[in-house]
Amino acid sequence: MSTTPTLQDVLNQIDTSLPAATDRLMALLRIPSISTDPAFKGDVANAADWLVDELNSLGFEATSRPTPGHPMVVAHAKGGAGPHILFYGHYDVQPVDPLNLWDRPPFEPALEETEKGTVIRGRGTADDKGQLMTFVEACRAYRDITGTLPGPITIFLEGEEESGSPSLVPFMVENADELRADVALICDTGMFDADTPAITTQLRGLLGEEITIKAATRDLHSGHFGGAAQNPIRVLTKILASLHDETGRITVPGFYDGVPEISNALRAQWEDLGFDDKAFLGDVGLSIPAGEQGRTVLEQIWARPTCEFNGILGGYTGDGFKTVLPAEASAKVSFRLVGTQDPLAIRESFRALVRAMVPADCEVEFHGHGASPASVMSTDSQLFAQARQALTDEWPRPAAFIGAGGSIPIAGYFKTYLGMDAMLIGFGLEDDQIHSPNEKYDLRAFHKGTRSWARILGKIYGVE
Amino acid sequence: MSTTPTLQDVLNQIDTSLPAATDRLMALLRIPSISTDPAFKGDVANAADWLVDELNSLGFEATSRPTPGHPMVVAHAKGGAGPHILFYGHYDVQPVDPLNLWDRPPFEPALEETEKGTVIRGRGTADDKGQLMTFVEACRAYRDITGTLPGPITIFLEGEEESGSPSLVPFMVENADELRADVALICDTGMFDADTPAITTQLRGLLGEEITIKAATRDLHSGHFGGAAQNPIRVLTKILASLHDETGRITVPGFYDGVPEISNALRAQWEDLGFDDKAFLGDVGLSIPAGEQGRTVLEQIWARPTCEFNGILGGYTGDGFKTVLPAEASAKVSFRLVGTQDPLAIRESFRALVRAMVPADCEVEFHGHGASPASVMSTDSQLFAQARQALTDEWPRPAAFIGAGGSIPIAGYFKTYLGMDAMLIGFGLEDDQIHSPNEKYDLRAFHKGTRSWARILGKIYGVE
Repeated sequence: MSTTPTLQDVLNQIDTSLPAATDRLMALLRIPSISTDPAFKGDVANAADWLVDELNSLGFEATSRPTPGHPMVVAHAKGGAGPHILFYGHYDVQPVDPLNLWDRPPFEPALEETEKGTVIRGRGTADDKGQLMTFVEACRAYRDITGTLPGPITIFLEGEEESGSPSLVPFMVENADELRADVALICDTGMFDADTPAITTQLRGLLGEEITIKAATRDLHSGHFGGAAQNPIRVLTKILASLHDETGRITVPGFYDGVPEISNALRAQWEDLGFDDKAFLGDVGLSIPAGEQGRTVLEQIWARPTCEFNGILGGYTGDGFKTVLPAEASAKVSFRLVGTQDPLAIRESFRALVRAMVPADCEVEFHGHGASPASVMSTDSQLFAQARQALTDEWPRPAAFIGAGGSIPIAGYFKTYLGMDAMLIGFGLEDDQIHSPNEKYDLRAFHKGTRSWARILGKIYGVE
Repeated sequence: MSTTPTLQDVLNQIDTSLPAATDRLMALLRIPSISTDPAFKGDVANAADWLVDELNSLGFEATSRPTPGHPMVVAHAKGGAGPHILFYGHYDVQPVDPLNLWDRPPFEPALEETEKGTVIRGRGTADDKGQLMTFVEACRAYRDITGTLPGPITIFLEGEEESGSPSLVPFMVENADELRADVALICDTGMFDADTPAITTQLRGLLGEEITIKAATRDLHSGHFGGAAQNPIRVLTKILASLHDETGRITVPGFYDGVPEISNALRAQWEDLGFDDKAFLGDVGLSIPAGEQGRTVLEQIWARPTCEFNGILGGYTGDGFKTVLPAEASAKVSFRLVGTQDPLAIRESFRALVRAMVPADCEVEFHGHGASPASVMSTDSQLFAQARQALTDEWPRPAAFIGAGGSIPIAGYFKTYLGMDAMLIGFGLEDDQIHSPNEKYDLRAFHKGTRSWARILGKIYGVE
């Protein structure tokens, strides 16, 4: 006598199989799939193959697809009814240097007991192998309980996220018909806090610019030429110092075109989150919000655009002193963008502003480093409502719609190239130390993350 | 039958032995005596020993004298009558970076034919090994022709000039009786132009300051923290950009206390020099004087104080882009001083100005790098007149009394600590590229420089 399987059966299966799921994640974590370092090219391919085998064993039709860089893993579950969803994650990881700051070998992951609970320690645990495996394990639980995958699902896993995703857009464009779905689910973000799940609905865009000021044809002695010759460091600092006014606003003409005020509803919801400004800044030794005056820290990092100087170099920077007037000086400048700010228009306006400040005897060279607009997801679809409810059912506190200061260009690409909305749901925490030594992912995040996806899939495909 | 040797005999000997003298200089140039880099400590000592051997072979009593840093070379020729002169030079050299801009290995010197004549190419050729060897070779020619050195001469060679001369004053004070002479001859300056020799009578002082702005306790991700956390590069550029007003004047309070206007007589002599602003700047690809408005280029480089930025560093400066908010940023700032400007008072005023601009959440650290006042020499002694005549006899145009933009603190130290006037005579040219890649010294400067010292020694010791 067979009964219709329930969501609770699926959740029970996830609970029971947690040790086995953890072992599978450990196997993936042991593959050092560092995408930026050519020495690990074979390992990146091995991680793709491991995932292909895993997904095929669950009933997906999975393949590793070559690109000019690292392969894409694409897996389809074609049966079933309901919305076609596409799940995105990445199986490559950050480099591990400085290795001496790790407390264990980064590719020999292990469970560790900490004050805050059990964690999975190792490179890629939180970013992004642990996260992508929450979705895979949720699919497995459905297969185990129902004998089949829950609906028409495509899994799309990238191996170049940590090296700028050079093949992503070409691959998307070339395989648009195959990849297009009703919605994209992206699992590469965090919770609001350890008890509050989140759907990230606004992501800042990013415009990168490198400027180099050139003056004399060679380095000069500041005794011989000082006072008469242009100093490119001086020119550069004058330019950079002019980019913010005394209230912290950015002076590039037209910069604030397309910067929206957040809605009252969102502002109220963010206030309810009880974000602790003091703790956020205190963790890194700071205490005073440094951005635009009159804005909360959450607004400053989620909803306001910025201009930051990420690097500056000129003249003699070694030990001691050298009285050189350098021939050139350069800076890396980045703008975080929100709303409908146009990165290319801002690039032109920024460059015009800089050119106007360069003295007649100097030259400026520009080098662009990426230009992606902000993403703001519509939050009034049924899928958003379902996902929010599913997350709220699983965790102690209701799910929040939050912003993210960082840029995840993939969300914009799904919109631009495939016409799909994206929903960003992830289970990372601020203290996961992604991109740093001793990266970890809470075992609780892995377990309840898997359960969260099971609940979301249940809402979407009607398993109650 | 012996005749009294004449100055002409000495000059002929210099002409004949030029190839051998050049070979000796090459041997000294091959020793990489970079004083700022601890890796070259042994080489600096080797250069001192080489000079000790050389001077002993000429009849000096020469020794290498230890200091807490690099050794001093002190050599005495005690016989003979007439004024006791002390010759100063330095045998250490600047670092060679950026090495890739050198057309040949910097410590494999060679003669090269250029459009402007034969040059000796290599690190230290003009600053200061080639220059100090002009005096040594003049002494050798006297010894070769007369069998003895021309008079009571002390040679005093330093190995720390390019790293701020930390041991110089203590050594001078400790050995004051041994070093005190009637006048100091300093060979570390330049000609007015290739045909016009010069005695440098005013030298700017130098105050070096390194400032480091610190914000967060670690590097931050500009996506997560950008907008809310202090950016030390931004703080630093605001500070540096405030140090000059729109007319090029320096804004440090009290900075212009003690800055004199030059005399009408000196102004008239400088105008007679026919200094070519366009050519001076044009040689290095510039065309517009960048200093204080309303001042000639000669005033800007010889008679006006400056504030220059010699180095700046913060954040990510490698290839590509990294969206980091750095924990700190630093700059090396130097002030050239004139008249009776007080370096220590300016240091305090500068630091107070900087501290007042550092936001509450940031810290600033200062590191001082030397503080020497300007020197202005009296020009009405007999020795000045003799030297001026000797130089005029050797070169196509009469010798000029000039200023120098660079700082040679040693001149002030001789006055302060030993009560001696100093005469600065050197044969460098603007295009020697000292402190830069491809440093050179004209073979003509080396040759006629040696002849010039022979003529000056002839005037002083009555060899006609």
